[in-house]
Amino acid sequence: MLGCEIWLKFENQQFTASFKERGALNKLLQLTDTQKAQGVIAMSAGNHAQGVAYHAHRLGIPAVIVMPEGTPTVKVEGTRSHGAKVMLEGSTLEDAARFARDHGEAHELTFIHPYDDALIVAGQGTVALEMLAQGGSLDALVVPIGGGGLMAGMGTVARALAPDVQVIGVQSLLYPAMHALFNGREVPEDAGGDSLAEGIAVKRPGVITAEIIKSVVDDIVLVTEPQLERAVTLLLDIEKTVAEGAGAAGLAAILADRERFAGKRLGLVVCGGNIDMRLLSDVLTRELARAGRIARLAIDVRDRPGELASLTRILADQDANILDISHHRVFTSTPAKGARTLFEIETRDRQHLDDAVNALSAHGYTVSLRGPDEI
Amino acid sequence: MLGCEIWLKFENQQFTASFKERGALNKLLQLTDTQKAQGVIAMSAGNHAQGVAYHAHRLGIPAVIVMPEGTPTVKVEGTRSHGAKVMLEGSTLEDAARFARDHGEAHELTFIHPYDDALIVAGQGTVALEMLAQGGSLDALVVPIGGGGLMAGMGTVARALAPDVQVIGVQSLLYPAMHALFNGREVPEDAGGDSLAEGIAVKRPGVITAEIIKSVVDDIVLVTEPQLERAVTLLLDIEKTVAEGAGAAGLAAILADRERFAGKRLGLVVCGGNIDMRLLSDVLTRELARAGRIARLAIDVRDRPGELASLTRILADQDANILDISHHRVFTSTPAKGARTLFEIETRDRQHLDDAVNALSAHGYTVSLRGPDEI
Repeated sequence: MLGCEIWLKFENQQFTASFKERGALNKLLQLTDTQKAQGVIAMSAGNHAQGVAYHAHRLGIPAVIVMPEGTPTVKVEGTRSHGAKVMLEGSTLEDAARFARDHGEAHELTFIHPYDDALIVAGQGTVALEMLAQGGSLDALVVPIGGGGLMAGMGTVARALAPDVQVIGVQSLLYPAMHALFNGREVPEDAGGDSLAEGIAVKRPGVITAEIIKSVVDDIVLVTEPQLERAVTLLLDIEKTVAEGAGAAGLAAILADRERFAGKRLGLVVCGGNIDMRLLSDVLTRELARAGRIARLAIDVRDRPGELASLTRILADQDANILDISHHRVFTSTPAKGARTLFEIETRDRQHLDDAVNALSAHGYTVSLRGPDEI
Repeated sequence: MLGCEIWLKFENQQFTASFKERGALNKLLQLTDTQKAQGVIAMSAGNHAQGVAYHAHRLGIPAVIVMPEGTPTVKVEGTRSHGAKVMLEGSTLEDAARFARDHGEAHELTFIHPYDDALIVAGQGTVALEMLAQGGSLDALVVPIGGGGLMAGMGTVARALAPDVQVIGVQSLLYPAMHALFNGREVPEDAGGDSLAEGIAVKRPGVITAEIIKSVVDDIVLVTEPQLERAVTLLLDIEKTVAEGAGAAGLAAILADRERFAGKRLGLVVCGGNIDMRLLSDVLTRELARAGRIARLAIDVRDRPGELASLTRILADQDANILDISHHRVFTSTPAKGARTLFEIETRDRQHLDDAVNALSAHGYTVSLRGPDEI
């Protein structure tokens, strides 16, 4: 489908549905007996929280997870269910992180950083050990970068065991911090926004990870939000697997530059599967609009009885399913005796949509097709 | 989470995303050389079509797949891409099936039935071979039933190899044909409807399969549409895997009767993952409404400036996200000077939703909460 051979590593099938467990487990296993008895603390409302909570509980190590106030109850309860104590502190991630460090020092809890720690990096690197052992001879590893823990670990392993394998990092265009550092520029101050790939939406990459990445990575590429959305949808629709935005970043990179990867044998890490079901539903619907499966038509009509009957009959004859109708009489540019009607319709595909629009035009209606990004 | 131990068999990870490949492959492998050279024909717009097309192509056997007119292009193209010739004939599945039989006889093509064929049944039975070998000692196999091919095959294997394992079939309440036969009743004439589990929406079960099922199955249970929707959502959200409605029927059966399955070690077949992305998006949204993550509030307001500002401020203070607003002045039971406003809001969970409603009430508003099944 994409002109290359893709091997997926399903880290979304880890118990807490992300690779973060690996680093957390490695770090926890290296603690001294005293440290284990005193317990650990971490700040995260996401995958790191669950990874630490799950393995700390397995190992009998007390764990405190700090999350910002207003974290959805489902995340709080999810982390509690793994046996951790959850504290809701601070209104931002930064405030929560500061609290976690202070509270950890005051109570002699070992702070478990989500990425900027050599032991975390080493744990994440085991993904590459398995991929290189199982995936045969790969041309390249394509790995998402947020803080850089996964990339630094995997890159180190690849350089040591398979120096011929290209190592390519992926960041989202909205959060290109490591990309900037890698290319000798300053970390941009104004980066940010609501990225689908919140798992790699990191403004300040790790110091340790950046150092490693500079020496082991061949290239870092950037992907757009639509590419991420398309990649999440493809993994769901074709591979039948749930990837969060960051987990689909590798595939998004292939979509972004098919020529570069043509004919290659690629190893991609589906690094996590924790995506909000409402967000996923929205992504799917937007992709349907892009594929011509759902469309919004603006149709100018005369404002009188029978007009809607005529329109809906034409759409019915075309086998197009009407999802929503709204009339606009006052705030349109049509003549005062006219009205503009917005139809949201469902069609089988782009061709079917075009047929429906052509049928309306053939009956004398002025139709304009609205894209998924227009109202 | 459900009080039992569940082992899932991921037949949604087959190349064409369903178990149907197994029966099709077995049948194709048993054809004589003459039959192979003449080719095969099948009628299906679903998983059977893809299974036959894919393996016929692999084996170099010409394949014709008949689909009803109006089948979505994506399905037609999907089947063509596996190397089959697709013919669009007949306006219903019955018409298409009749055409396929006639066309097959006229052109000496072997007809590949989707389930009522001992070789198909035997192929599907291999699912149980693998589950019994890999899943340790199971208390029960829970298996979806449409035409009955999968259940007849798996039941036969279980009876032969593991006579102590309970064999339980699952049908949807809308299509309970095999359930009726199994319980000594006639197949209901009026069954039908738009089931989420279209893969098991079969009005007339197979003759061969019904015969086998009567002798190897312990019980057949029925599941409702909401149970199927919940099961699809759980598999997606927790297991990170895409199940079509029929593929989630086994889990729906557990949800339908947790007491019966409590403490048991169960083998479930996620028999297919081919669900339309728009349908999946709708299922997810409905489940969010059931979970209190999306809600529709009807609020009686005085029709004057500032009223909406007051309402939206209260919701903002509660951190509830407004998705949609509509005003109803004429067609409501409120006094003529009033209006009813419908708010669609997004909340973190049921508790958060209750908090938002209580805040509105505390400010003197009359609020009624609409369920997902009400307008």
